[in-house]
Amino acid sequence: MAEIKVGIVGYGNLGKGVQAAVKQNSDLELVGVFTRRPVDTVNVNEEGVEVVNVADAKDYVDQIDVMLLCGGSATDLPVQGPKFAAMFNTVDSFDTHAKIPEYYEQMNEIAEENGNTSAISIGWDPGLFSMNRMLAGAVLPEGKEYTFWGRGVSQGHSDAIRRIDGVKDAVQYTIPIDEAIEKVREGQNPELTTKEKHLRDCYIVIEEGADKDKIAEEIKTMPNYFAEYKTTVNFVMAEELAEKHSAMPHGGFVIRSGQTGEDKENNQIIEFSLKLDSNPEFTASVLVAYARAIHCFNQEGQTGAKTVFDIPLSYLTNKSSADLRKELL
Amino acid sequence: MAEIKVGIVGYGNLGKGVQAAVKQNSDLELVGVFTRRPVDTVNVNEEGVEVVNVADAKDYVDQIDVMLLCGGSATDLPVQGPKFAAMFNTVDSFDTHAKIPEYYEQMNEIAEENGNTSAISIGWDPGLFSMNRMLAGAVLPEGKEYTFWGRGVSQGHSDAIRRIDGVKDAVQYTIPIDEAIEKVREGQNPELTTKEKHLRDCYIVIEEGADKDKIAEEIKTMPNYFAEYKTTVNFVMAEELAEKHSAMPHGGFVIRSGQTGEDKENNQIIEFSLKLDSNPEFTASVLVAYARAIHCFNQEGQTGAKTVFDIPLSYLTNKSSADLRKELL
Repeated sequence: MAEIKVGIVGYGNLGKGVQAAVKQNSDLELVGVFTRRPVDTVNVNEEGVEVVNVADAKDYVDQIDVMLLCGGSATDLPVQGPKFAAMFNTVDSFDTHAKIPEYYEQMNEIAEENGNTSAISIGWDPGLFSMNRMLAGAVLPEGKEYTFWGRGVSQGHSDAIRRIDGVKDAVQYTIPIDEAIEKVREGQNPELTTKEKHLRDCYIVIEEGADKDKIAEEIKTMPNYFAEYKTTVNFVMAEELAEKHSAMPHGGFVIRSGQTGEDKENNQIIEFSLKLDSNPEFTASVLVAYARAIHCFNQEGQTGAKTVFDIPLSYLTNKSSADLRKELL
Repeated sequence: MAEIKVGIVGYGNLGKGVQAAVKQNSDLELVGVFTRRPVDTVNVNEEGVEVVNVADAKDYVDQIDVMLLCGGSATDLPVQGPKFAAMFNTVDSFDTHAKIPEYYEQMNEIAEENGNTSAISIGWDPGLFSMNRMLAGAVLPEGKEYTFWGRGVSQGHSDAIRRIDGVKDAVQYTIPIDEAIEKVREGQNPELTTKEKHLRDCYIVIEEGADKDKIAEEIKTMPNYFAEYKTTVNFVMAEELAEKHSAMPHGGFVIRSGQTGEDKENNQIIEFSLKLDSNPEFTASVLVAYARAIHCFNQEGQTGAKTVFDIPLSYLTNKSSADLRKELL
């Protein structure tokens, strides 16, 4: 029996991932998909799930326990977050790191005023990676921490290439450098430059007659995005890009190397890693677990904005605490 | 300035690890070491730290915020836990998995009755590994989970060898099998037998004239401990054992391999691993972080027994929530 009724705002890759993830959790039920597009153009392929215009969301206040906001951080969430937090409990994946404190304050105020609870910046980074950075730092205060991302597609870098004259389409992979990871794992505590941690591998489809050398040069010297990295550029046909580079894998590593003992003579390594076939589906799976937690928090009267640091792990599952102690401790 | 005053009960490897870990946390201060041994035979090598007989612990109720119980799970903690939970907030590493539910009930009742808070079964397994099993299972409900231990010294297995006639001393390493880990990491979701997951490597010093073949045979056929595993036996001199096998390394891997998507077509791997030079010092570092959390819980009036599933991560550090959001999210 489904105890927690949820809605999805935004039906892109992340929204579709949430729809699939909800099906794997029998205590959750998807009530509706809320979209800015004309509702008759959106087919969610699932019986019993309504497609609703976002403007009509307020009519669903009594029917939905938690709304999962699946828009992007650049322009969608700064507007959708506060708007929905005034009406519903929410979960979002706001990931513009520099703006998180400001977003938190805004969401916290609105959610609290309206007696709602909002989990912000949920996913894997921010999210599971943040939890591991925090936990490892608390356990090993004397130490050094490293985050590596990839191998995975970076939308921001792919978009930057697509804006170059003569480029039709592009996919950019961020690749962590194995030698650097090995040094960290061995407890060497290396100082690593940007270039030593990641390299960038680009697959590009060009317009007919465009100048390959000029495009490659423009990519490799692009400040902030590529100039600081070792970058490889591969020109491919549109068919090859579609066939071999349309998946959305990602992942990465959070490693803390710390020293313990009277003379810090013992090295201790804590490592958390992800290897994901589908970045949006994994992020969606994390959002869904936190939807459960946020519903419970709200039921208990804990309102306002919450992050992964504030929510005990036991809230993420529908198992009883007694079962958790028996089966997983 | 130290805000949290702690005590250590039991001054073995774990207790000494706690003493060293407290020094890495400026908001904690070690007040006393409580021992069953004659107090004048225990030298803690630290100014300002008292050595006290456990029988006098009740005199310190107003001077200590959290007592870290550093005894063993077989005979010490079942007695010490309830006794100290009646007087102090406590943190312990009770790790007899099968008896945790019963121990929890007992500790919860006594701590609650006395207005105290007790973190039980803290460390890495149970502890950090349990957290990762729970978190990964909540995020990827459709999947399979694996725990590998080692390479590390198993005290239980080393003791079992020492009980054999003709054996003077022994160290046993539990070693995870790389091929099995690789299969799991690749998302193959293998069914693994006991023998396929770990092997056992033994270093043994024998009495003069003892029969090597007989001892090796006795080890390799010992039910529950070795018979189910591939076991290698190495005979060494006492000097070599002392020189090369007296460290206490350990570690291991918790890996969940899950499937997401409408047709479970995408594989997602979550992995948490530890590589520890010193098992007791690392366990001690985890206990100390939870001492901080338990103090805060008690200040807030949250009494009774708690596990790693009940405590939000933000309680493990002395950073403010605003700083955590800014720096680590």
